[in-house]
Amino acid sequence: MQNLTVNGDRLWRSLMETAVFGGTPKGGIKRLTLTEEDRAVRDWLTEQCLALDCRMSVDEVGNMFFTRAGTDPTLAPIAIGSHLDTQPTGGKFDGILGVLAGLEILRTLNESGYETRHPLMLVNWTNEEGARFSPAMLGSGVHAGVFDRLYADTRVARDGQTFGDALEAIGFRGDTPAGSTGMAAMLELHIEQGPVLEAQGKDIGIVEGVQSMRWYDLVIEGVEAHAGPTPMALRKDALLAAAELILLVERIANSHAPGVGTVGCVEVHPNSRNVVPGRVALSVDLRHPEDDQLDVMEAELRHEIGARLKDGFAITLSEHWRSPAVKFDSLCVDAVAEGAAACGYSSVRIHSGAGHDSAYIARVAPTSMIFVPCLGGLSHNEAESTTKEQCLAGAQTLLNAVLCLDRSLDVRAGDALGTIGVAVGMGSVGHIEDTATPGDNRI
Amino acid sequence: MQNLTVNGDRLWRSLMETAVFGGTPKGGIKRLTLTEEDRAVRDWLTEQCLALDCRMSVDEVGNMFFTRAGTDPTLAPIAIGSHLDTQPTGGKFDGILGVLAGLEILRTLNESGYETRHPLMLVNWTNEEGARFSPAMLGSGVHAGVFDRLYADTRVARDGQTFGDALEAIGFRGDTPAGSTGMAAMLELHIEQGPVLEAQGKDIGIVEGVQSMRWYDLVIEGVEAHAGPTPMALRKDALLAAAELILLVERIANSHAPGVGTVGCVEVHPNSRNVVPGRVALSVDLRHPEDDQLDVMEAELRHEIGARLKDGFAITLSEHWRSPAVKFDSLCVDAVAEGAAACGYSSVRIHSGAGHDSAYIARVAPTSMIFVPCLGGLSHNEAESTTKEQCLAGAQTLLNAVLCLDRSLDVRAGDALGTIGVAVGMGSVGHIEDTATPGDNRI
Repeated sequence: MQNLTVNGDRLWRSLMETAVFGGTPKGGIKRLTLTEEDRAVRDWLTEQCLALDCRMSVDEVGNMFFTRAGTDPTLAPIAIGSHLDTQPTGGKFDGILGVLAGLEILRTLNESGYETRHPLMLVNWTNEEGARFSPAMLGSGVHAGVFDRLYADTRVARDGQTFGDALEAIGFRGDTPAGSTGMAAMLELHIEQGPVLEAQGKDIGIVEGVQSMRWYDLVIEGVEAHAGPTPMALRKDALLAAAELILLVERIANSHAPGVGTVGCVEVHPNSRNVVPGRVALSVDLRHPEDDQLDVMEAELRHEIGARLKDGFAITLSEHWRSPAVKFDSLCVDAVAEGAAACGYSSVRIHSGAGHDSAYIARVAPTSMIFVPCLGGLSHNEAESTTKEQCLAGAQTLLNAVLCLDRSLDVRAGDALGTIGVAVGMGSVGHIEDTATPGDNRI
Repeated sequence: MQNLTVNGDRLWRSLMETAVFGGTPKGGIKRLTLTEEDRAVRDWLTEQCLALDCRMSVDEVGNMFFTRAGTDPTLAPIAIGSHLDTQPTGGKFDGILGVLAGLEILRTLNESGYETRHPLMLVNWTNEEGARFSPAMLGSGVHAGVFDRLYADTRVARDGQTFGDALEAIGFRGDTPAGSTGMAAMLELHIEQGPVLEAQGKDIGIVEGVQSMRWYDLVIEGVEAHAGPTPMALRKDALLAAAELILLVERIANSHAPGVGTVGCVEVHPNSRNVVPGRVALSVDLRHPEDDQLDVMEAELRHEIGARLKDGFAITLSEHWRSPAVKFDSLCVDAVAEGAAACGYSSVRIHSGAGHDSAYIARVAPTSMIFVPCLGGLSHNEAESTTKEQCLAGAQTLLNAVLCLDRSLDVRAGDALGTIGVAVGMGSVGHIEDTATPGDNRI
């Protein structure tokens, strides 16, 4: 294992070579899912993998699988990869690094003639970003049974095209039934998209899971009034109540570290300089690695909203979306830790604050992730930046972890279809409405 | 004078008849300045006034003047009126009552054949509200020399149209030079837009002046970041700083009663659920009856902003507009008092908390205002409500006051152009920029 070393220069060249598919003048990438740019990078990946004698399959929602044979044909493949689509003003690394590091590992293994026991399978998941077709992580979600194929096919882009039509237009509707591709395990390398590794000076993040996340809509109704002649004591200013709730979300998050809380959207009505706001709508995003701690954060929010109702404001809190905490498989997490340590990389165990394909894949296969730093924690931005050395460290850790799992795992192909530790029914829920008014104190 | 009585039913019918131009399902009016709805009500007013044999003139910024001749052609006209434009969710009385009560007075005088010494002139000022084109009181401001025509013409609405283009599009660019229409005096009837008259059970407010007012633009720059993986301690959330400043404006106002402070507009960038806001723009409106107390309120705001800069936020405070405290002409104020007393209406002397066209007109002519109560002090709201009896009391007081001034005043037409008690140099200032950044602590 110590002698197998990925080629950092070759990996970097792959990153730069594919960055032209949708490349922007500012050095970013605009490669929305299932567009011509997406087709171009998919064709490029196909050509590279077929040249490595990998077997290709594409499933019904365009997820791409390239398999390098192992020595034991009865074993299920170990999967590596991520996604190649980007945000409208995305960078060169988000998702892409995970796929191209996987390609680099296939090349390294072929070059050395190294034979793994399990087959090794490179994956490109369709529509991770959710920027063109909402929701995000759609391809991996269908694979994991979170969504069905019909749901995916009927998602509609702003340009009016459906996911299904777009998939066929670029020629990537495969015939492999969605979800039928078994895996012994899945490892995903990704940029952190946050500032923790950089702030702590660590090379590698060993990802233990994905935070529990909930999105809420909060609407505050006061009384609209003229800003001049209305004495302060006689006002019901919805924006003042909103400001207190914005600061409350911060206080709740601060008292439940490492939980976070964010108000990202504010809409003020009527939004006129000389009118006391009568209504304010806020989005609230709460996250915590532990579901029960997120329950506590939510309860505190609801309690304080209840107190506000006594002041004569009408406040409605609706749950818009939720995603429960994901705990990655301990064997996979340990393999990542061992992979980083084998090369002397500094590392820290962290939870992902963002959603990833691996959050869904963890429902049907043992899974973990590897994070590398990105400059300033910046992502979803054309200025997204990770150095060649950081990419190399991530790819080398990924290779080490794969070889570690190849030794320790013993999953038969027939057992690798959603039979391992799947928590069914913990999935994303729809728009749960929970309304409270002063006369109907249900918050 | 005692025998001249306005027709309250006819006045009410005029109010209801014009309320259809921009009428909303909730019983309010959306009649933004220089829109098709504004054109419709202007055409209606023109038709009514021409039927009364009034002479019509329109100036370069769309201010409309309808003059009923007096017995002495050498005297300058006594002006009555207000504005016909509304807020986006405005009511049926704000401004409109003053114009239609003026129309009712013209009708009453014509019916009775009463002849005044001075000509009597009904005025509809353009863009009092400032809701579509900022700043407010633009037409009366140009008339009074506070703004020039070019400044008015180049104001831009959110829809991209300029004031000048909008004025020409509805056909109300007149050829009377702005400011050339002289007045012996101006009396404006208006709803109070506040709760004082209602709380004290008074019929009439005798308005002695207008509060000092200042509008500011406040821009807070933090650092945009992904809401998931960015720990609370590593954030520079512009919205959290904004929320504290919103509450600060409230605290400053509370500690300087009867001063008031309002944040009416909020724009968050990028306004996305899962992005920590990087930039927030707020409007701030501060008012106090005394200029020197408003200076103190502003100083406190700037001091606290300076303290925030130390936290690493870049904050820019720009003065957008200001209007100093206005003291109305004592002869006009006394005429209003006499007009109310003549009919036995209860009254109280008060200051206006809102801006009005009369605040600018007071610079170029003796001026006062008459307030009538509005339900709950509510205005700039579709539920704005004043009874038929209250409208009648206001219109009758206005007629009485006009006749009182017609006897006591003796202003020649040639003397009526900005020569009377004008406080030059106290005017509104333009867009004074006052920028502060952490490295340049000039706030």
